Amino acid sequence: MARPYDTVTFLSDFGRTDEFVGVVHSVIRSIAPDVRVIDLTHDIAPYDVRAGALALARSVPYLAPGVVVGVVDPAVGTSRRPIAVEVGDGDSVLVGPDNGLLAPAVAMCGGATRAVELVSTEHRLDTGAATFDGRDVFAPAAAHLCNGVELTELGPLLEPASLMPGLVPLSREEGGEIIAEVLWVDRYGNAQLNVEPEELEGHDDQVAVELDGTLRTARRARTFAEVGAGEIGLIVDSYGLMALALDRDSAAGRLDLVAGSQVVIRSLDDDTPRGTSTSVTLTMRRTSGEEAQP
Amino acid sequence: MARPYDTVTFLSDFGRTDEFVGVVHSVIRSIAPDVRVIDLTHDIAPYDVRAGALALARSVPYLAPGVVVGVVDPAVGTSRRPIAVEVGDGDSVLVGPDNGLLAPAVAMCGGATRAVELVSTEHRLDTGAATFDGRDVFAPAAAHLCNGVELTELGPLLEPASLMPGLVPLSREEGGEIIAEVLWVDRYGNAQLNVEPEELEGHDDQVAVELDGTLRTARRARTFAEVGAGEIGLIVDSYGLMALALDRDSAAGRLDLVAGSQVVIRSLDDDTPRGTSTSVTLTMRRTSGEEAQP
Amino acid sequence: MARPYDTVTFLSDFGRTDEFVGVVHSVIRSIAPDVRVIDLTHDIAPYDVRAGALALARSVPYLAPGVVVGVVDPAVGTSRRPIAVEVGDGDSVLVGPDNGLLAPAVAMCGGATRAVELVSTEHRLDTGAATFDGRDVFAPAAAHLCNGVELTELGPLLEPASLMPGLVPLSREEGGEIIAEVLWVDRYGNAQLNVEPEELEGHDDQVAVELDGTLRTARRARTFAEVGAGEIGLIVDSYGLMALALDRDSAAGRLDLVAGSQVVIRSLDDDTPRGTSTSVTLTMRRTSGEEAQP
Repeated sequence: MARPYDTVTFLSDFGRTDEFVGVVHSVIRSIAPDVRVIDLTHDIAPYDVRAGALALARSVPYLAPGVVVGVVDPAVGTSRRPIAVEVGDGDSVLVGPDNGLLAPAVAMCGGATRAVELVSTEHRLDTGAATFDGRDVFAPAAAHLCNGVELTELGPLLEPASLMPGLVPLSREEGGEIIAEVLWVDRYGNAQLNVEPEELEGHDDQVAVELDGTLRTARRARTFAEVGAGEIGLIVDSYGLMALALDRDSAAGRLDLVAGSQVVIRSLDDDTPRGTSTSVTLTMRRTSGEEAQP
Repeated sequence: MARPYDTVTFLSDFGRTDEFVGVVHSVIRSIAPDVRVIDLTHDIAPYDVRAGALALARSVPYLAPGVVVGVVDPAVGTSRRPIAVEVGDGDSVLVGPDNGLLAPAVAMCGGATRAVELVSTEHRLDTGAATFDGRDVFAPAAAHLCNGVELTELGPLLEPASLMPGLVPLSREEGGEIIAEVLWVDRYGNAQLNVEPEELEGHDDQVAVELDGTLRTARRARTFAEVGAGEIGLIVDSYGLMALALDRDSAAGRLDLVAGSQVVIRSLDDDTPRGTSTSVTLTMRRTSGEEAQP
Repeated sequence: MARPYDTVTFLSDFGRTDEFVGVVHSVIRSIAPDVRVIDLTHDIAPYDVRAGALALARSVPYLAPGVVVGVVDPAVGTSRRPIAVEVGDGDSVLVGPDNGLLAPAVAMCGGATRAVELVSTEHRLDTGAATFDGRDVFAPAAAHLCNGVELTELGPLLEPASLMPGLVPLSREEGGEIIAEVLWVDRYGNAQLNVEPEELEGHDDQVAVELDGTLRTARRARTFAEVGAGEIGLIVDSYGLMALALDRDSAAGRLDLVAGSQVVIRSLDDDTPRGTSTSVTLTMRRTSGEEAQP
């Protein structure tokens, strides 16, 4: 018998206004009564596979071992494959559509050890519906895995290399500049970049950041509270990546950043032309105080 | 002793911003520590008994057996009766106000086998409040039922026929047309109709739909992804009813539909006058492409 | 061994859109698998310590015994102390930042019996982050307490009197008037005041309320449904405080009230000058009917 799991971690773009999330909980409870379901989030923007994939990848190091169900699935009911991907030789199994949603989290776990396509009708709900695989395919598969059903009973093995890869944008260095991108804007307006602290090692505590053509100055800080009024902070966020942040204010709101916005980081002294440097100063003066709209 | 239940499924219009839902969970936990509470949704619009009743009825086939608590209760504290309704000879018990909220779900379960009015002061919280029966009456009743308290200990038996009926609008056929109504708009903007697939049997794959005086063409599809760009899909949704849907876009948003909107479905060839048929074609041409606003 | 707890009640300003809440659940599950986590609310406005403190204090009488984690923490990572506060000689422990968030709830429980600063690195997650103490400090502390770890193993004892007090505004009487304040506006638009029913004892069922310079009449009612159309109700809310309320409508929306708004209550006959009394009547006439915007 397979190792039984006792926790299902669940992420989706279902929202909380409809009863979708509750119904998935009920289906799991009906099949595997003792399993605990932990909701990671269900407010991924509808169809935003990349945002769901990044949220899963961020969370993975902190999840209880078990089954992870991810459902952001614009092509539900089509030929895209429903899959279960085992990682860590069975430590955990990720269940969801084969559309790249699970891929970055799988990579964070060291890659797939096995994967199957979820085609066993015996381990699905037979509702006749083609539009709610979260309820009919993924939740039952997760619950059966928790009950000790073998991965390979759920369907035929897939070549892990055949799974849809996740597309996580990488930053790149070009002539001393870091060409980066906003990965995620959180509730507080912090804008996480695809930049690791090590990439900033050659730079001073103050750097120039170019946002949509405008140059600004950002300063390294350890906490939000260390960022001065009117200053833009560049902090190591709670997931170990660099983020643009203000103290008790929304960096994304003030700087007009969304997931996908380009951010170029360069040294203030060496690379910034004098004229632009003045402009930065001017800009920073304008951003002083709570009411400023940089 | 009554059959003990181990799951409480909970729906309300409490929202999640206030602590109401958490307090109800705490009250259940304090009285019946081992019970699992599953939140169906708490984002029913305030006072919208019909929307709550429909969400409960949709969910009922998928719920774990146990106690269901439903609270959408604009007349809380007045003479409207707090009730517990047993279905399936004790398979489940639905608890809430007697205002029609529970009725469609009870009907889905085959009707009430017994019902009581929740008047036992011994099984309520004595807070002196008249405005939070979810906490003071319904949650304690559910928890005590889970602990094995007999239904009839909670209050005197009621004649099931005396319970407030639910008002679920039925579609009707008139001269070959189906006069229907939007029951529910979900997070993705799919507009569920009170129309079963069988009602469309005499119609072609393409039909005319009249929305607020405007005629459009809709095409039967099995999945969202089968709906072409600019097309309106008519799909069997995950609850087995017909829904107007677009591919990765909001049908309700594009077509200005809300719960309660009238939708008339007729055959494209037989019933649509030539002039109007042209107008449909024009409309569809305008809706092509992602930016179109049909 | 300390008394083991089996419930963690959790309130924060994390929202539900990001995965923060789910990650905290996962961390607790990983350390103390059998503990149940009850979410009180996570939609406290970002950084609004006062709103979080009031929500905790309102909920405390209804919580299952155990550990309470509160995280509204604008100064995360700075020298503000992370604390655990024991109440009731060990009945419960409140965990969070020492910024006043926990103080009113602690007071509701009869005050702190012991308190410690959470500095034990052995009972934290070692992530290197300084911006997510909910995950790295407070959740692990709560989980370890549930596992029976002694309070004093988490860090050195603090003098309870040294903890940051909570600032709950008190109403005051001045020349027969009650100078009060809106503490909280709930989902339905009811505006809770810092006024206990006893404070109104000298007044009639109808009183004058002055809101932003405008005088209106409010009438005591027991339930929302007792408030007539166009009337302003003054009810004892579910937490035992006076609240301004309309029947199936938002008092806060209609009367432009937010948390912190001043409300002055006086007797209609004795204190209201005749002219103003007329104005009240006029106002009330204008507010009659559902469409009126008082």
